[in-house]
Amino acid sequence: MNTQISAALEAMKNRDIKTVFYVACGGSSAIMYPSKYFMDREAKTIHADLYSANEFIHRNPVTLGEQSLVILCSHSGTTPETVEAAKFARNKGALTVSLTNVEESPLAVESEYVVKYQWGPEAIAKDTNYSMLYQLTSGLLYLKEENQRFQSMLQSLENLNGVYEQVKADYAEKALAFGETYKDEKVIYTMASGANFGVAYSFAICILMEMQWIHSHAIHAGEYFHGPFEILDKNVPFIHLLGLDETRPLEERALGFSKQYGEKLIVLDAKEFDWAGINEDVQGYLAPLVLNHLLRQYANALADARNHPLSTRRYMWTVPY
Amino acid sequence: MNTQISAALEAMKNRDIKTVFYVACGGSSAIMYPSKYFMDREAKTIHADLYSANEFIHRNPVTLGEQSLVILCSHSGTTPETVEAAKFARNKGALTVSLTNVEESPLAVESEYVVKYQWGPEAIAKDTNYSMLYQLTSGLLYLKEENQRFQSMLQSLENLNGVYEQVKADYAEKALAFGETYKDEKVIYTMASGANFGVAYSFAICILMEMQWIHSHAIHAGEYFHGPFEILDKNVPFIHLLGLDETRPLEERALGFSKQYGEKLIVLDAKEFDWAGINEDVQGYLAPLVLNHLLRQYANALADARNHPLSTRRYMWTVPY
Repeated sequence: MNTQISAALEAMKNRDIKTVFYVACGGSSAIMYPSKYFMDREAKTIHADLYSANEFIHRNPVTLGEQSLVILCSHSGTTPETVEAAKFARNKGALTVSLTNVEESPLAVESEYVVKYQWGPEAIAKDTNYSMLYQLTSGLLYLKEENQRFQSMLQSLENLNGVYEQVKADYAEKALAFGETYKDEKVIYTMASGANFGVAYSFAICILMEMQWIHSHAIHAGEYFHGPFEILDKNVPFIHLLGLDETRPLEERALGFSKQYGEKLIVLDAKEFDWAGINEDVQGYLAPLVLNHLLRQYANALADARNHPLSTRRYMWTVPY
Repeated sequence: MNTQISAALEAMKNRDIKTVFYVACGGSSAIMYPSKYFMDREAKTIHADLYSANEFIHRNPVTLGEQSLVILCSHSGTTPETVEAAKFARNKGALTVSLTNVEESPLAVESEYVVKYQWGPEAIAKDTNYSMLYQLTSGLLYLKEENQRFQSMLQSLENLNGVYEQVKADYAEKALAFGETYKDEKVIYTMASGANFGVAYSFAICILMEMQWIHSHAIHAGEYFHGPFEILDKNVPFIHLLGLDETRPLEERALGFSKQYGEKLIVLDAKEFDWAGINEDVQGYLAPLVLNHLLRQYANALADARNHPLSTRRYMWTVPY
């Protein structure tokens, strides 16, 4: 096991933890949704909440204190709200553990424990942000409640690279076709539920809105029928994500409806992936990681087809805000 | 106090409650966000979560059981997922309390306790859904933790009608102008944070997407700078909600940015409302109720200007789903 994760787990062991707060912004917050799902389904004595960093600070949950674990994440480690949230939580006596790609960053400095994750095409899957977060979350429950998913999760994460490679190859043509087919769209919705909702959220706000300036919205598959589905017609594109967790019936029902009245549907179904080496009891938890990895390929194809690089920004890092 | 609320509170008194689950769909779920905010800020020993009804059932939180209170809501009392969620929770031994406008409805039948709320133009503010939910939430914390907001909340809710009337009169012209100005827009975003986020969510999915077939998305004001703000330009309309709770700085910052780079901004600021009769310590909690009430006026004006009645549907109640 990664020594930084071991150190963080050791610190958790020595502390009575009643609440976990997952705190970050944008894409770094989206990676935390699967861990919140995991906690809801598995944690008998510890409650988890997930907040955008500045909301966390100002909301100031009354249970935040010495019996809290606060897990934060910022890729560069410089996101001001997240750095501030680490200070805030630490001042309240909480145990702070931060994920970042930059070990000497402000977030790393302000947090008690730091976990540096890998990033980019050469990264080993088990050492990337989503995976390291799962190691922290399932490790916590192993220590506190003897949760049996921990070992299964560790084993499976070792084999995640293989799943990524296979999916990437299997969907290469479909990704290119997606880019070509949807390059002129002004609006593209995304949809998922359960552990996968964060992936839909991330693709909507980070890829489509931020990096492609395409209108978007992540729709919760269970909420679809209570408002959003009225927007559907043959001309509105929807990216439907189908995972393998317990909420899959919601995602299937939403897709079934879209198939009846829509035509521009992009379906990524984790049932079609090759899950070799991934234990069945954690496939539902790991589906969002694979969906997210695959969607990056779709994002690249869209950016290429539109001749609008994913790095293009008009405000971010460019103007004061 | 309403006798149905008294009966529900009496039942809460006799039970050890560790978790509260707010469970509903769409607009009925949106009314629960302020109560979740209230719980986060006030509840020292009870944790609250909020789920769309079918997500709740399939996610199946492991802490759901005899020490849980599950508060549900469905206007007609017939929303299948919410009725099912009531059964599900009751089978697990949870205390179930449902808000509905129809006392003999399936949801009422399946729930242990029922609170019928008023609805429509003649409704007394303190007896509408948002208000009755706050009476349950703050009442619970009064009983369990001697929380001091309860009396203040009850007093203030008595005077909420006056605030509604005044705001309605003050904004009548602005609402009409909104309808005329934005009647041809294809996309309108909404934004808020804290206790107000549910109002932004509800306006986006129920009014704009469902009732007007206008593309929309509720953006969290704190998340704006981590993706969504890149979509802003002079042609994209944003409805900015500003409340009075502790997260107001997030809403102000988001508006400040939109003012620099956007032009189509609709600002509803609770600071400009007349809060006569509402205690200061609950104004932040009650701002979303007033914002929501006012937005209904904006919705009516938009529907009139577009000649697209709020009752128009192509799928809801019309086709199987």
